[in-house]
Amino acid sequence: MQNFLLTLAYDGTNYCGFQVQPNGRSVAQTFQDGLEAVLGCRPDIKGCSRTDAGVHALGFMLNFHADTRIPPRKLPLALNQHLPPDIRVLDARIVPEDFHARYAAHTKTYLYRIRNHPIDSPFEAAYYTRVPRRLDEARMQQAAQGFVGTHDFLALCATGSSAAAHGDTVRTITACSVTRQGDEISIEVTADGYLYNMVRILAGTLCEVGAGRLAPESIPEILASRDRSRAGPTLPAKGLFLKSVDYDL
Amino acid sequence: MQNFLLTLAYDGTNYCGFQVQPNGRSVAQTFQDGLEAVLGCRPDIKGCSRTDAGVHALGFMLNFHADTRIPPRKLPLALNQHLPPDIRVLDARIVPEDFHARYAAHTKTYLYRIRNHPIDSPFEAAYYTRVPRRLDEARMQQAAQGFVGTHDFLALCATGSSAAAHGDTVRTITACSVTRQGDEISIEVTADGYLYNMVRILAGTLCEVGAGRLAPESIPEILASRDRSRAGPTLPAKGLFLKSVDYDL
Repeated sequence: MQNFLLTLAYDGTNYCGFQVQPNGRSVAQTFQDGLEAVLGCRPDIKGCSRTDAGVHALGFMLNFHADTRIPPRKLPLALNQHLPPDIRVLDARIVPEDFHARYAAHTKTYLYRIRNHPIDSPFEAAYYTRVPRRLDEARMQQAAQGFVGTHDFLALCATGSSAAAHGDTVRTITACSVTRQGDEISIEVTADGYLYNMVRILAGTLCEVGAGRLAPESIPEILASRDRSRAGPTLPAKGLFLKSVDYDL
Repeated sequence: MQNFLLTLAYDGTNYCGFQVQPNGRSVAQTFQDGLEAVLGCRPDIKGCSRTDAGVHALGFMLNFHADTRIPPRKLPLALNQHLPPDIRVLDARIVPEDFHARYAAHTKTYLYRIRNHPIDSPFEAAYYTRVPRRLDEARMQQAAQGFVGTHDFLALCATGSSAAAHGDTVRTITACSVTRQGDEISIEVTADGYLYNMVRILAGTLCEVGAGRLAPESIPEILASRDRSRAGPTLPAKGLFLKSVDYDL
């Protein structure tokens, strides 16, 4: 048996998330259908994270064990022929037998895309959240630095999550940046782990800063409050992309 | 009556082109339906060009005469509420009474997008042509300069076009550039006018150069031949965008 590590990009619009769910079509299930068509078996797959319904991925990582004579470099092409166009396998390689796409991850990087314009794009409306009023990206970038470090992120956690119930809400954000290119604002966050809806709430909080409704200096205070109601709104899933996962490989 | 000049962006995937056609749904008709809903009348509209079936636009210009108390700055929002999401009005302004979006155009700029990668993107497959084999963009950029200037472009004209039948095939390309950003190659062409399929054939010819099947120096010879069969293939419509129109305004 060999352990295959694959890189996927997918449009999450029509999926209930990565993980197999009782209701709705998941990316994992759809991927397994393709895998079964190519390998003739249906191995268990380990994803680097659960992504929520409607969240996209530029570099989702998963691994599975299988016996096949197909060389890794030929796997992407073979699998893509059996997957719908909204899921693409970008890369495949062999990793050590005990490698696990989730547990081996040092950090994961998410991207949140905002279109800061009064009018939607006819091309990309499924891939950003639109904020009509001008946001001040310099204020947002300043505020973003308040999230960097090891903190209790309970204030950025959707209420009712299991991590919150277990008091397991300390994470380390190693980088957080806000950049503008024309009408597009990109928020990038790298962390060792995330609470439920954490990036979407973090992005919503930065938008409050960008719109002038929160001070850039208010982030440490919001985190210290451990109070979800002090942070900004949860932005929609469609602007969120899992960008990359960092491993020692 | 006031003369309104509007800027539109649209996804051409589901349209038979801009111009009203006997068969198929055109952007013009769909736009007029929206205009009628907002103004209560159905003015004649003049587009800056006919775009072919499946061609997209980032900055399509059109004008029409109408009597309305809606100020131009409020027109985009009002119209967008009555248009499908694949057509967006970006801007509206009043222009002199005799201004005509097509005849007043000095130059028009088209963009042709190529994804130079063996695997499609799950997000943008409707907005580029994919070329799996590595293209040499420096060779393409060198060849592109051979198109700049006033030339007979019959070699880049789809056979059977009316311009060709009338011997009206001289045009002036003022700029032609090839740039790469990661896996995306952009070909931009600015000209005073275009023959039928000219940009798609020009892009196809540059891809032949990028793949090493034509020499970068061969462009003047191909143009001088006035022979369609000497140029490259006509690339698909879905990679083509009308980017902008240059007026004295």
